[in-house]
Amino acid sequence: MSSFNYAIAIDAMGGENSPDKIIEGLKLFLHEDRDIFFNIYGDEVLIKKSLVKFNLKFIENLKIINCTTQIKDKNSVRESIKIGKDSSMWKAIESVKEKKNDLIISSGNTGALLVISKLLIKMIPQIDKPALAGLWPNFHGTSIVLDLGANIEFNEKNYLDFSKIGSELYSVIFEKKKPNVALLNVGSEEIKGHDELKNSFAKINSQLNNFNFHGYIEGNQIKDGIVDVIVTDGFSGNIALKTAEGTVNFINTEIKKIFSSSIFGKLCYLLCLPIFKKIKKNIDPRKYNGGIFLGLNAPVIKSHGSADSLAFYYSLKLSAKILKGNLVNKIKNNFSND
Amino acid sequence: MSSFNYAIAIDAMGGENSPDKIIEGLKLFLHEDRDIFFNIYGDEVLIKKSLVKFNLKFIENLKIINCTTQIKDKNSVRESIKIGKDSSMWKAIESVKEKKNDLIISSGNTGALLVISKLLIKMIPQIDKPALAGLWPNFHGTSIVLDLGANIEFNEKNYLDFSKIGSELYSVIFEKKKPNVALLNVGSEEIKGHDELKNSFAKINSQLNNFNFHGYIEGNQIKDGIVDVIVTDGFSGNIALKTAEGTVNFINTEIKKIFSSSIFGKLCYLLCLPIFKKIKKNIDPRKYNGGIFLGLNAPVIKSHGSADSLAFYYSLKLSAKILKGNLVNKIKNNFSND
Repeated sequence: MSSFNYAIAIDAMGGENSPDKIIEGLKLFLHEDRDIFFNIYGDEVLIKKSLVKFNLKFIENLKIINCTTQIKDKNSVRESIKIGKDSSMWKAIESVKEKKNDLIISSGNTGALLVISKLLIKMIPQIDKPALAGLWPNFHGTSIVLDLGANIEFNEKNYLDFSKIGSELYSVIFEKKKPNVALLNVGSEEIKGHDELKNSFAKINSQLNNFNFHGYIEGNQIKDGIVDVIVTDGFSGNIALKTAEGTVNFINTEIKKIFSSSIFGKLCYLLCLPIFKKIKKNIDPRKYNGGIFLGLNAPVIKSHGSADSLAFYYSLKLSAKILKGNLVNKIKNNFSND
Repeated sequence: MSSFNYAIAIDAMGGENSPDKIIEGLKLFLHEDRDIFFNIYGDEVLIKKSLVKFNLKFIENLKIINCTTQIKDKNSVRESIKIGKDSSMWKAIESVKEKKNDLIISSGNTGALLVISKLLIKMIPQIDKPALAGLWPNFHGTSIVLDLGANIEFNEKNYLDFSKIGSELYSVIFEKKKPNVALLNVGSEEIKGHDELKNSFAKINSQLNNFNFHGYIEGNQIKDGIVDVIVTDGFSGNIALKTAEGTVNFINTEIKKIFSSSIFGKLCYLLCLPIFKKIKKNIDPRKYNGGIFLGLNAPVIKSHGSADSLAFYYSLKLSAKILKGNLVNKIKNNFSND
């Protein structure tokens, strides 16, 4: 392990079809990148079987740490903390606390992952609340939206902190020095929105930052790609994200329904298959997989529970960028004068 | 006018391509329904020209009320109140206050419409805040979502009031006696969300209502159609609506881009044209046009500024249902015991 610059802890047991999809995703990643060492936490028997299945048995980048239990999606956060100390998720997070790994990634129970990570890895002192950030496709590339649901209660300092955190994240992933940041609101005029938002606008506008402040944008402008980072409270952010996911699903389903409801439609679909494949590839949600939990002393990545191996591969790529870009230290430096 | 049971005030001057799209939409409506009298407020010369253009000059259901000014989209609410007293919007709203009309519909400045309506038509005494409701397509039909942005500040009574108002609206439009109501939240468990939401859940759950209480739903469940009415605060509701609109636009644009980026794609598109037309018809946003402003002593309908004549026709159909279903009296009765 000493020859590797970075080590990632993988909780291999959470989400659908684990650990198979985890190991298959890892294989895709290892085809491109061998710089990182992976400590894989979970049921040793199942993981070994999966390594054989995907022909990864003799790779030197991997080590299995056997864990006897697993936190399930149905477990409440309280239950997870109470009974989860021997689980793959807990052990993986603990290893980051003990500096055996630099980052933890899991497809498991989101609430448990966020709370146990905060408990063990701890916050960067100057940051009050951890942020859950995500990638959002737009006409020109990708934006970052945060908070996506970690914090229901939100204050003025959080808006500024999350603007700074989101900007560092954007800079590391997309190599742009001063990203554009906007606050999500119900109108673009300065007088719109509730008091916390208006005060945050004034506060952010009045000081120098690691970003350019664009002001407010509305929900229908996220797609335009005029801003790189969109900051909102966790309640609105979660509703925006899930409503967008629901809308994509609704349109997909309606389109499929109509193409498959007649023989002519089915023929059209077959003929246009190369076009549909290209569309699917271009707006594939798997490319945007990975909730990024920031503000702690190490990054925590949440892969979607229902994500497949390709989606898990994308979240590993994201993890590698975050590590190699030295994100947590950049965030710490940004806040060191606060 | 005495032979008509209902009268609607139309502000013919707001939005793009008015009054042409208004008059053309009205023509479509009059093909199906001649029960309602329309008082049309705006520039008499332009409206007359439009009536000639669409062959409606000799219809007995119509009267023009000449108004010398117009509230523009760029006018602030304050400016609109100060300078707008002779405008088509103000006069149309005033006519409802004076009981010359039963409902007002406008494609103009939303903020001005809501504030002037509240000022003149006034709230039903037991209701604290007016609601902006809208139609939302789902897999099985249509849901109603409110509040879509009229109220940024929201309290426990508002959640209950809006559940009752939304249910009466749903019952009138879709003829279902006890609709299912849910509160929009970041999770479906009872412990999720902020305090106002949790207290509202308990309050709504503990009493008999004109609806069945489903509990919480998340943004991605709106499309499922398991609930008829979704209640949320105006901030989250506005963000949900606009994010959904932005997502639809994003997917449409990406699909079009790929079909038009190659000769093969263009041929595919031409061949599949009947299918695409069917898709467009099935998920045509114009069918859901019309913000419904409720809680006042008369209904106020906001047609989208960029809506075309067909969309305006749909909002007239909606207006007719609301009037013929006696919605405002039903809401008043529902609140009379409060």
